[in-house]
Amino acid sequence: MKLLKDTIDHIEELSRDAIDDIHAKFNAFAIPRGSLGRFEELAAVYASIKGTAGCAIRHKKIVTMAGDHGVVEEGVSAFPQQVTRQMVRNFIEGGAAINVLARHIGAKVIVVDCGVASLLEPQPGLKIKKVGLGTKNMALGPAMSREEAIRSIETGIELIEEELEEGIDIVGTGDMGIANTTASSALLSVLGRMDVVSVTGRGAGLDEESVQRKIAVIKKAIDINKPDPNDPIDVLSKVGGYEIGGIAGLCLGAARYRIPVILDGFISTAGALIAHAIEPKVNTYLIASHVSAEKGHRMMLKLLNKIPLLDLNMRLGEGTGAALGINLVEAGVKLLYEMATFQEAGVSEPHRE
Amino acid sequence: MKLLKDTIDHIEELSRDAIDDIHAKFNAFAIPRGSLGRFEELAAVYASIKGTAGCAIRHKKIVTMAGDHGVVEEGVSAFPQQVTRQMVRNFIEGGAAINVLARHIGAKVIVVDCGVASLLEPQPGLKIKKVGLGTKNMALGPAMSREEAIRSIETGIELIEEELEEGIDIVGTGDMGIANTTASSALLSVLGRMDVVSVTGRGAGLDEESVQRKIAVIKKAIDINKPDPNDPIDVLSKVGGYEIGGIAGLCLGAARYRIPVILDGFISTAGALIAHAIEPKVNTYLIASHVSAEKGHRMMLKLLNKIPLLDLNMRLGEGTGAALGINLVEAGVKLLYEMATFQEAGVSEPHRE
Repeated sequence: MKLLKDTIDHIEELSRDAIDDIHAKFNAFAIPRGSLGRFEELAAVYASIKGTAGCAIRHKKIVTMAGDHGVVEEGVSAFPQQVTRQMVRNFIEGGAAINVLARHIGAKVIVVDCGVASLLEPQPGLKIKKVGLGTKNMALGPAMSREEAIRSIETGIELIEEELEEGIDIVGTGDMGIANTTASSALLSVLGRMDVVSVTGRGAGLDEESVQRKIAVIKKAIDINKPDPNDPIDVLSKVGGYEIGGIAGLCLGAARYRIPVILDGFISTAGALIAHAIEPKVNTYLIASHVSAEKGHRMMLKLLNKIPLLDLNMRLGEGTGAALGINLVEAGVKLLYEMATFQEAGVSEPHRE
Repeated sequence: MKLLKDTIDHIEELSRDAIDDIHAKFNAFAIPRGSLGRFEELAAVYASIKGTAGCAIRHKKIVTMAGDHGVVEEGVSAFPQQVTRQMVRNFIEGGAAINVLARHIGAKVIVVDCGVASLLEPQPGLKIKKVGLGTKNMALGPAMSREEAIRSIETGIELIEEELEEGIDIVGTGDMGIANTTASSALLSVLGRMDVVSVTGRGAGLDEESVQRKIAVIKKAIDINKPDPNDPIDVLSKVGGYEIGGIAGLCLGAARYRIPVILDGFISTAGALIAHAIEPKVNTYLIASHVSAEKGHRMMLKLLNKIPLLDLNMRLGEGTGAALGINLVEAGVKLLYEMATFQEAGVSEPHRE
């Protein structure tokens, strides 16, 4: 709890000064004013987080957090539980979509076991930060204890701190966990005070009948556990997941060290909702990479007041959307550093403003 | 005319075979079916154009076509005409947004003088393909002769052919030309049979009064020249531009040599509308990178039945949106080549389909 409290205490409000500096710089570039659209905003957000207009992106990291969910035994996923650990191996071996996209954008993937339901061999390329061997079935009681919820968040903070020495200029969130859309829908329903039906989707590919079962399971979990919407740690412990807590911690830790966070999809944004409920100042450090095809993601983004950069009908998780988002932020920052001004390029300015 | 006719005659219908192959490959990957959204579509389109699932992207090229417009003398642009040649110099020197984004994605920019209103010195990094010293003022008569319109299209075809030896796996379109949104709005109005008011926007930054003047000028140009909507070359000659004809030719030439074309914004899509009106088979070779903030672009994309990949409020041209689109297509193709299947990764398949 000390690490969490200490982290929250050190998250600073962002200053407008750097943002105004960036807009002034863009206005001097040899382009029609505002014509680079959201790239100007991305560069401004990045620079304001760094606290200076003089900054470049060198170290890009995507943290893919894995955890299992006891609620899988209720038949809420199209895939069996062992897929979580099988995909962790796939991430380590470099054959997953997140590996391909991370290579494409020049980012490093950090694979983390936050709570896979089996003991994984320590090996290069895997960080073992296990809070438990999968959560308990939330349809029967709390997914985890309050202490475990805090521990899962602190895991995310530790992951940021462990990267500080090597360097981490920007971080993307990612997830893997069979049944974790069930936990994320439950979190959204409670924190957003929304009807379960309106926030529950097909996950990795449920048919309509299974979606109805998933809805009933989430309703039951909320009824039994009565998570307190005003206490995000209570909500995380009762209907959340270890990797979701990890993502919440990643957001808080990144904000504390002034590192922009590029959110992936539904699961990552559930983690961000927890972080935001714990400390609203985290919000300005978050950038939404994409809107997922998973029902409910759009509502999460609205709660965070974020407009996603991409809408490509993706619903994979792993950090795949975050990778693409990092690439766009980097493009914005490069435009800021590499473009010539009207004066430098000898280009005439417009007739009038 | 021979080159144009020969090119059109050689554009082939795409086969479904490669597309079906690609979808089968994606279904074998260790991901929930369809979860990569539009990346699967991008890989499938790319492979179907190449005619094989065995293909990678090596040579990425963005062709930025510059031309001037006599109609600038009607006060339809916020910028003076010399900005066209000044920006051509900026492109050659590498200080423009398109240079930054091309470097970001590893593409080469080919800068072309299709009809800048002054004589440019031959120099490395500039292709001089001048059809004329700027078009004539379309508010007073045809922008160019029918022969010049054909010549401008053939210029685009030649540009593709000149890259074949070095290699060109994918091509992005780009433009530069003060007053070219005026010509593009006129083209859209005629080819789309749409009211001028509904297709005319602020271009590089006009105020409301100037937009009204621009609308009046376009109406006058259409009234005086009476372009025949069933004859795209007539439309191009009367209210088009040299760089717009060049982009049309680029689309046709690329389709003839089975090279995917990533369209940039409003001006590029005007060129694509001309190409599509000349030979509808070109359509399947075109991918829309983004929807521009320029009024009318969404309508152009609808006419071509294209859903843009990005909506980032950009309205710069140069090929900037195309660069981002190429990067996304490349991501799709890499996913196709580098991902592990369920079998390869030892990942369990879903309970049911």
